[in-house]
Amino acid sequence: MKKLIKDRQQFLSDMLDGLKIANPELDVIEDTVVVRKDKKQSGVALVSGGGSGHEPAHAGYVAQGMLDAAVCGEVFTSPTPDKILEAIKAVDNGDGVLLIVKNYAGDVMNFEMAQEMAEMEGIQVETVIVRDDIAISEPDQRRGVAGTVLVHKYAGFLAEKGLALNEIKEKVEILLPEIKSIGMALTPPMVPTTGRYGFDIEDNEMEIGVGIHGEKGLHRESIQPINQIISTLVEKLEQEISADDYIVMVNGMGGTPQSELNIVTKYLSELFNDKHYGVKHWYVGNFMTSLDMQGFSITLVPAKEEWLKAFLAPTTSLYFNA
Amino acid sequence: MKKLIKDRQQFLSDMLDGLKIANPELDVIEDTVVVRKDKKQSGVALVSGGGSGHEPAHAGYVAQGMLDAAVCGEVFTSPTPDKILEAIKAVDNGDGVLLIVKNYAGDVMNFEMAQEMAEMEGIQVETVIVRDDIAISEPDQRRGVAGTVLVHKYAGFLAEKGLALNEIKEKVEILLPEIKSIGMALTPPMVPTTGRYGFDIEDNEMEIGVGIHGEKGLHRESIQPINQIISTLVEKLEQEISADDYIVMVNGMGGTPQSELNIVTKYLSELFNDKHYGVKHWYVGNFMTSLDMQGFSITLVPAKEEWLKAFLAPTTSLYFNA
Repeated sequence: MKKLIKDRQQFLSDMLDGLKIANPELDVIEDTVVVRKDKKQSGVALVSGGGSGHEPAHAGYVAQGMLDAAVCGEVFTSPTPDKILEAIKAVDNGDGVLLIVKNYAGDVMNFEMAQEMAEMEGIQVETVIVRDDIAISEPDQRRGVAGTVLVHKYAGFLAEKGLALNEIKEKVEILLPEIKSIGMALTPPMVPTTGRYGFDIEDNEMEIGVGIHGEKGLHRESIQPINQIISTLVEKLEQEISADDYIVMVNGMGGTPQSELNIVTKYLSELFNDKHYGVKHWYVGNFMTSLDMQGFSITLVPAKEEWLKAFLAPTTSLYFNA
Repeated sequence: MKKLIKDRQQFLSDMLDGLKIANPELDVIEDTVVVRKDKKQSGVALVSGGGSGHEPAHAGYVAQGMLDAAVCGEVFTSPTPDKILEAIKAVDNGDGVLLIVKNYAGDVMNFEMAQEMAEMEGIQVETVIVRDDIAISEPDQRRGVAGTVLVHKYAGFLAEKGLALNEIKEKVEILLPEIKSIGMALTPPMVPTTGRYGFDIEDNEMEIGVGIHGEKGLHRESIQPINQIISTLVEKLEQEISADDYIVMVNGMGGTPQSELNIVTKYLSELFNDKHYGVKHWYVGNFMTSLDMQGFSITLVPAKEEWLKAFLAPTTSLYFNA
């Protein structure tokens, strides 16, 4: 296994130690909970998290204008309810806490349990569940993927504006069903904790509709030129969208260089022009990764003025470029 | 070859088209020259460039507070003098142009030729050459690598302050010999234009002192835990440095995920603590890559107050995080 690690059992703690050094405004409590050193004294606090391996998600989005805490599980493993509870307690300032959870069984269960525990301690908690991955046909079963980062940004904007917990939840729930993502992979992630690839794939194959843990999606086929791949993904996305103008995220899966993400952007833009969709803003970079997997995802959000304004609002996160 | 491309011959033009879409304030002229749409009306203009494959360098640093133009050659291939001349002419506003060139024979020759051509047209041009890669023992022969990005930032800061061309050159030449970098690689880059790996390496080997085109450096050895790798690199760096406090860049080579760069940061920080070196600021990310090569480099600059202030000054580049 070719990895820049010391000990596979220390992957998470070493990574969080490094994150803290690179981001002096962050702190790590309870070994796995990333918080802002400068705790927000009022306003709704936002907590997200999940398994690690998706860096910079979620800990890199703990910043002014985005999250107040991220609970980091082991690689591809949900964090436990006690750690989520500690995160909630650390950031609550009396105005309540919103949990932003990707739709995976373990995450949903553990965040729900933590919510109940926090409520028993008198903390007001609400949860929103992100299900943006349209590679799964049944909407309730859809996984939370790169669109989750835009949910962090929108909720962070609303919290900065001083909205109440129920108002934020209500507004986020209007955004949620409008976020549509789909991904593909050329290579599997190498999972450092096991030393194994996330899946097997032939040298001439790619996985369409892949999840951020290497889970299967739509189908596997032989590698196509990027314009063909984009046609396939957009055809699927078009079954889900109805707006004229979009905010578009081209998200790298971790091992894909910026040059190729730019090439993806070119052909996606070209196809959108042909189809007369407008794009009000592009995000192109590594936002929600799957370790060192090579591949990308496309996320579309209708370019509603309020959402665009929220996405473009300032944040101190080093990893969310406006 | 697993690449997100349409046609290997269009790699550069497709990538630049995508860069322009993701960065609406950028324009591409003469097919290969990236400039700011909003041309600076006064002050020294900065031009850099070189072969492509190092994204976001250099085109991603064309931004307020950094470069005015980047001349993009084909992958790992110097741009031609005529394109460099066009870049110089596009950005000059009468206050002169500084060329920031990495020390590769082709780049040095072609930028020098362009300088002569521009001077014949009455444009005032100066050149600085970056030689930060200490994997090469002879200082004059050293390659320009990740430290080049900090030169862009420092020169950009000085240009924003309104210094004259000769003053900027003089100050940059004080910084240049103080920048020390060294890199390593776990895997070679896959070169899209040839469909071949940049070098061959065994599954249990790593290359110490690698260049950003996969060139050999110090030696090849079996893979070590990251703390050992860092010891090896720092031992080499220590032969070159004499300050107490540093600005440190941990630069990903393109295929290395953020999680592993954070782990590198942790162990480098730990070793620096042990050795009583201070670190005033960390840069951790993909700044100067080698396509999808897995690996990293360390760059050290003494934490002189003026340099730190310049590095931390604002820029509109999406790819240089302060």
